[in-house]
Amino acid sequence: MWSLIDYILQLTPYSELSGRLHPAASVVVTFVLLVVGYIIGSSITNKLFGKDNFPVKDKHVFIAGGSQGLGKALAILLAKKGAHVTIVARNKQALDAAIDEIQAEKLYPHQTITSVAADVTDHSQVVRAFDEAAAKHDGKTPDYLFCCTGNDYRPNLRHLMFVVGAARPRLFLEHSIQEFEDAMRLNYLGSLSVAHEGVKRMVHHGVKGKVVFVSSTLGFVGFIGYTEYAPSKCALRGLSESLRSELLLYGIDVHCFFPGAIRSPGFETENKTKPEITKRLEGEDEASPPDVIAMALYKGLRKGQFFITSDLLTDILRAGTHGITPTNNVIVDVLFDCISWIIAFPYIWYFDWQVRSAADKHIIKTADDNIH
Amino acid sequence: MWSLIDYILQLTPYSELSGRLHPAASVVVTFVLLVVGYIIGSSITNKLFGKDNFPVKDKHVFIAGGSQGLGKALAILLAKKGAHVTIVARNKQALDAAIDEIQAEKLYPHQTITSVAADVTDHSQVVRAFDEAAAKHDGKTPDYLFCCTGNDYRPNLRHLMFVVGAARPRLFLEHSIQEFEDAMRLNYLGSLSVAHEGVKRMVHHGVKGKVVFVSSTLGFVGFIGYTEYAPSKCALRGLSESLRSELLLYGIDVHCFFPGAIRSPGFETENKTKPEITKRLEGEDEASPPDVIAMALYKGLRKGQFFITSDLLTDILRAGTHGITPTNNVIVDVLFDCISWIIAFPYIWYFDWQVRSAADKHIIKTADDNIH
Repeated sequence: MWSLIDYILQLTPYSELSGRLHPAASVVVTFVLLVVGYIIGSSITNKLFGKDNFPVKDKHVFIAGGSQGLGKALAILLAKKGAHVTIVARNKQALDAAIDEIQAEKLYPHQTITSVAADVTDHSQVVRAFDEAAAKHDGKTPDYLFCCTGNDYRPNLRHLMFVVGAARPRLFLEHSIQEFEDAMRLNYLGSLSVAHEGVKRMVHHGVKGKVVFVSSTLGFVGFIGYTEYAPSKCALRGLSESLRSELLLYGIDVHCFFPGAIRSPGFETENKTKPEITKRLEGEDEASPPDVIAMALYKGLRKGQFFITSDLLTDILRAGTHGITPTNNVIVDVLFDCISWIIAFPYIWYFDWQVRSAADKHIIKTADDNIH
Repeated sequence: MWSLIDYILQLTPYSELSGRLHPAASVVVTFVLLVVGYIIGSSITNKLFGKDNFPVKDKHVFIAGGSQGLGKALAILLAKKGAHVTIVARNKQALDAAIDEIQAEKLYPHQTITSVAADVTDHSQVVRAFDEAAAKHDGKTPDYLFCCTGNDYRPNLRHLMFVVGAARPRLFLEHSIQEFEDAMRLNYLGSLSVAHEGVKRMVHHGVKGKVVFVSSTLGFVGFIGYTEYAPSKCALRGLSESLRSELLLYGIDVHCFFPGAIRSPGFETENKTKPEITKRLEGEDEASPPDVIAMALYKGLRKGQFFITSDLLTDILRAGTHGITPTNNVIVDVLFDCISWIIAFPYIWYFDWQVRSAADKHIIKTADDNIH
């Protein structure tokens, strides 16, 4: 690297410095050159090619899971920007309350803000939801689909409906098989069902729209307490990757959002069942308000990012699991990938050590009579 | 880097060379030093700590999906090494045929080789399979679980049973929602169900064993044609990551295997439905015989690798999506991650270009009367 600088110096009026710079000085010069080059380069690119990849005005936005949390915050944000909005959720009352809030924020009087009560885990209800949405919007097929499905399946909490997929962090053996199935049904299959029906209609009507899935930081990393939740969020990552490739056929964009903790009824429920060891590992996980998270998603969509994050750690993890996915910014992503290598070792060591240390306290009730 | 070499040279009898080496020579010297250091270092570590992480003799190995393909090849391999084996699959005839093959290869006369007919997508049958397996092995809880579940759900192919999860590559809109659900049920929930019941028994009996999941190259990368299959394989990756962390509580190891294409009935079925564009992108994908793939898994387990692969490309993708997972070899993994960055750009560009070019030929039948 120093030599590169020396060669560059020979081309400048400062050629007498060539080969005489202290290595440390060379590092600084290289770094400064890189940063300056990057700033100039990216501002030029932004000026030249920096179009808004997510024009919202007069678009029909279909938000599954739009009555609470991120979904509602997104509906409000996009109504403020001039979009027509359909929100879908199971609970009629929650929908009505949300519609009032969204209506109050709309930019133009002609914006149509509607809701459909439907359970997205039942595909026939998804089909009906799209029918009703089109009917209420003068036959207009949704341009943008947001699959923010997520719920809590425990019967005593059925009235709670929130976005992004409820995590019920528990120890693996404390979960029933049914819970693993429910998590997959809601977090993955619910989103898939909306995307499948929505894309079918977009293709039929030649709408070159967008499909946005909502995964989680836990789509990039998994640890104790998330054996039920993390796989469903990883599945969404996998779906996004395959679907992004495939929907190029029709000019439809696919995006996947990986938010951190969102302050919502879901987050509070989550903390009730969360194992002590999981809480200790996560530390004081600051949950962000839904509107902050929604804004991060909005900005990522405007930039045309494929994988969108709302916090630095998740962004580092995104770069650290880049594989064969489109980058957001190649310089930043390579840098973040380097950082992910550096943090990986102490992180794994510390987490593994903490779990091993907790082994004594976690004597699991396997006093199941069927086990011999 | 050159400067580092210069400093090192000053400490040697060749100090007069310091600062006078040509940059290119410095690069070569650095590279040679690294490689020599690595070879010496790794051979010392292997001598000192290179224990066999997967002793097989007299262990009870439980293989879900053991009647065909990878599962059967694994059963034969481990029987050859002296293990007691239980294979589980739905088809009694296929099991009986496999048992004959495995029996013929066992190392000691006292090895118990048994089978249980059960459908792992039904948890009550999984529980029964473990009961029967224990009964047939003098009450011995399985030490190692291999979750090689996978099947083809199309009714006319129900007699085919093969390992590793059938891919039914089709275009997204050609799949029914039921197919997405079936893929997840078999590839993910079937494996999960086996792991859940097996781990419960291991914990109960204090067995410090292993759980091995079988994902796929498509657990690391997804593209057109794999919207149904890739998410289920990604889910297994996520499950492995969380479960590895959690089962440290009980001293149980978790591993995840990511084989490439396996020559099996599954592979042939796969090619029947595979879209032309997917075939073109994959090129002549050489499917390896199951015994070669089984040997790769065996070697990885002996080395104690967390994520195990059977081919170079998948290993590069593993390193390229490393995130916060234990490495197999930090130098190789960092190098492979660099390679994954280099191949990512042309790969994405070429695949995206191919898909866009195929757009005209893929006019999808969305002539569904229900779509308005």
